[in-house]
Amino acid sequence: MEAGTLAPGDRMPSVRTLMERHQVSLSTALQTCRHLEAQGILEARPRSGYFVRTPARASLVPVDEPRPWVPDLKQYVGINQRVSSILARGLQANVKVNLAVAHGAPSLYPVNELRQATLRALRENPLLYGTPPPGGGEARFRSAIARRALEARMNINPDEIVVTHGCIEAINLALRAVASAGDVVAVESPTYYALLQTLESMGMRALEIPTSPQTGISLEALQLASETYDNIKAVIVVPHFQNPLGSVMPDSHKAQLVRWAESRGIAIIEDDTYSALGDDGNIPAAIRSWDTMGNVIHCASLHKTLAPGMRLGWIAGGKWQGRVEMLKYAQTRPNEALAQIAMGEFMDSPRYDRHLRRLRTQLREHRAAMAEAIATHFPAGTRLTLPAGGLSLWVEMPGSVSSEQLFDAALAKGIRVAPGSLFSNSSRYDHFLRINGGQPFTRDVEKSVRVLATEVLRLLDTTG
Amino acid sequence: MEAGTLAPGDRMPSVRTLMERHQVSLSTALQTCRHLEAQGILEARPRSGYFVRTPARASLVPVDEPRPWVPDLKQYVGINQRVSSILARGLQANVKVNLAVAHGAPSLYPVNELRQATLRALRENPLLYGTPPPGGGEARFRSAIARRALEARMNINPDEIVVTHGCIEAINLALRAVASAGDVVAVESPTYYALLQTLESMGMRALEIPTSPQTGISLEALQLASETYDNIKAVIVVPHFQNPLGSVMPDSHKAQLVRWAESRGIAIIEDDTYSALGDDGNIPAAIRSWDTMGNVIHCASLHKTLAPGMRLGWIAGGKWQGRVEMLKYAQTRPNEALAQIAMGEFMDSPRYDRHLRRLRTQLREHRAAMAEAIATHFPAGTRLTLPAGGLSLWVEMPGSVSSEQLFDAALAKGIRVAPGSLFSNSSRYDHFLRINGGQPFTRDVEKSVRVLATEVLRLLDTTG
Repeated sequence: MEAGTLAPGDRMPSVRTLMERHQVSLSTALQTCRHLEAQGILEARPRSGYFVRTPARASLVPVDEPRPWVPDLKQYVGINQRVSSILARGLQANVKVNLAVAHGAPSLYPVNELRQATLRALRENPLLYGTPPPGGGEARFRSAIARRALEARMNINPDEIVVTHGCIEAINLALRAVASAGDVVAVESPTYYALLQTLESMGMRALEIPTSPQTGISLEALQLASETYDNIKAVIVVPHFQNPLGSVMPDSHKAQLVRWAESRGIAIIEDDTYSALGDDGNIPAAIRSWDTMGNVIHCASLHKTLAPGMRLGWIAGGKWQGRVEMLKYAQTRPNEALAQIAMGEFMDSPRYDRHLRRLRTQLREHRAAMAEAIATHFPAGTRLTLPAGGLSLWVEMPGSVSSEQLFDAALAKGIRVAPGSLFSNSSRYDHFLRINGGQPFTRDVEKSVRVLATEVLRLLDTTG
Repeated sequence: MEAGTLAPGDRMPSVRTLMERHQVSLSTALQTCRHLEAQGILEARPRSGYFVRTPARASLVPVDEPRPWVPDLKQYVGINQRVSSILARGLQANVKVNLAVAHGAPSLYPVNELRQATLRALRENPLLYGTPPPGGGEARFRSAIARRALEARMNINPDEIVVTHGCIEAINLALRAVASAGDVVAVESPTYYALLQTLESMGMRALEIPTSPQTGISLEALQLASETYDNIKAVIVVPHFQNPLGSVMPDSHKAQLVRWAESRGIAIIEDDTYSALGDDGNIPAAIRSWDTMGNVIHCASLHKTLAPGMRLGWIAGGKWQGRVEMLKYAQTRPNEALAQIAMGEFMDSPRYDRHLRRLRTQLREHRAAMAEAIATHFPAGTRLTLPAGGLSLWVEMPGSVSSEQLFDAALAKGIRVAPGSLFSNSSRYDHFLRINGGQPFTRDVEKSVRVLATEVLRLLDTTG
């Protein structure tokens, strides 16, 4: 079916044929068909057998390209208060299905292998807890990161890698390295709310740039913005499988962005946390790989790809390297060694690539199943671009359904989603949702999508 | 000897008497005498036996009380550059004896017990690495912290405890909660260089307040400073076994400081990392215990008392609690759970108090031995206040010996010290050293003190 040999509407070979052709038992053949049925790939017709189904998601209308707007500065809209309030409401409720997160289910991660590596690290380093961790990070871990960075066409010296507490600390350090309170920083719109929070907490001003669900930040809009505001100090971009859009910048855009920012004296802060999560298994080239002047600060995290329970991120500071190192030292001192040692061992082993292959397959399946359910149950007018990688689905609800109203209604039913209002200082995405695409599509998850759909319909009726 | 039954000059009972009186073997009795001799407590006189020695450190002149100065603002003196340069020189050199650190030797910490607790935590939480850590911190660890805080007379709800990456992150958060770039923050003088770095990295201005080696920050000078500068937003104090002085604020000073700061609308940031390290085993009352208005932000770390290899600190934000929580979330997200679970278990067990008793005894011995060696070998005019707890010795060198010149000379001989110039934005402590008092007084350490003393003498001759 993936190869196109069987098209929608075609009849599936009979169970008996499958048994003979693939030398499998009746129960295996049946299980396979039922699994494909559950995923919405096959449909059973009474007394006729299985047929290839036209997936409902094929008819999904993608999210619109952003209508161009003139980037404007909303200085302080209280995104922190908004985020804090949403988080607090989420924590107080009795959540049964959490679709608000942006990481995979625990079962998707190599938890046992990392535990084993941790046990070995503890055995081999008896004085570990008695000794302050090494400056910058643990040597083997930094080497592993540097070796993996080659896959994204980055040539980084291990010494240049500063290990941080997740990508969020890396972004904090990058911003502090290049900008101060009052400065303007261009961000994608919509963007990960952590970025808006961090900017607000530092008194910096976020300038939201229209961003395509397909190709990422609009370079034309960025140019326009820089003509209006001459104090833009940096632009933060998530080039691959952007959170929440799932967009991927084409290589030509990355090259163009590097040249443009360089000529304007604007720093690029690249958050490349999702690049290993593409369905095709290719690691896209980092923006930094086009940079020859040290104008790109590269930030990343292993939080989404390897271990949500470890807070391991890193930063390579380009021409601000010295300042980044100083700021890291003054902000939190070097990271603990234990997780780094364990992760360094894992990344050096073939288990790392094996894990990533498995993770990508699972994410593709989970994402497709979630999109399928949304396409099936959500009311007409719902829009969704199915990304080719990553962890999130960005859903545009029809009419003027308020994502925060939906958030509260869903929470009352034990379901948590991330309302679109978190992803901008404006009200532009108030009728959007970010839905997690990283968890197994269980019956509970399926039911929660149906409940969400009902609530969307209800709100649609109420608001007209 | 400690009880005063045997005074300096008295003859020690003979080895034979010791064997009979204490029912020990000849070798044990001899070993004990040799141990006491090595510590400088006994001296052997040929053919006469052992005599109680007058410790050289008894004749040490304490560091002067600070001559009062009018607190002045040195806005930017580049302490970061100074610290970075000193650190870089230290890292490049082949250091054999490191007297620059402010933590104990690895052997002083319960490394095996914490490893065992970590193994249990990994066994009992198989999905740990697959799940993001809980917001604010791990429940049992926060409860253990809250229970231990009672010993310092603080009644803190576990929910109010935000776990941080060491005390340094706590201080960062506290400062960001109460002040902005350009604001003035009063600090002790001399003070831990991390504070000066953090202030400089945030564009805040450190106002150095005269601080007594005995009783800590001068409240009179603080009052004077507040009359000159009306934009002091906070005062940071280390009330117990201050780094580097070792001073301890009397309770009356703490109470007075709380009232004064409250009336002036100035926040108190208390760094109470060393309070468990008093020789007498009493936990002194925290400044926060006098606070009823939420005007004291309490910060602490387990880095010095329990595990230099874990980056575990915490903060209780008083009336800025909401802002502290938001800043922590935006800066690094919640800490990893593993170390917290292990430490929570350890702190709940009797092993915690056992460890602290042993640690205090060892620190007292190591500190005394180090002071003894300095008193014996350093040239006349050297001053040193022997603190009643903590990890550091603050040594004033005679004449105008430059601590940075000594730093470089010592480094060339494989010895690292912390030059006094790190502890102020002024040149006030350029002829001071901070010497670690937390490591076993081995032959190598003893030799290094003699080498240091020789270098001090040499520099004294050179500079007059």
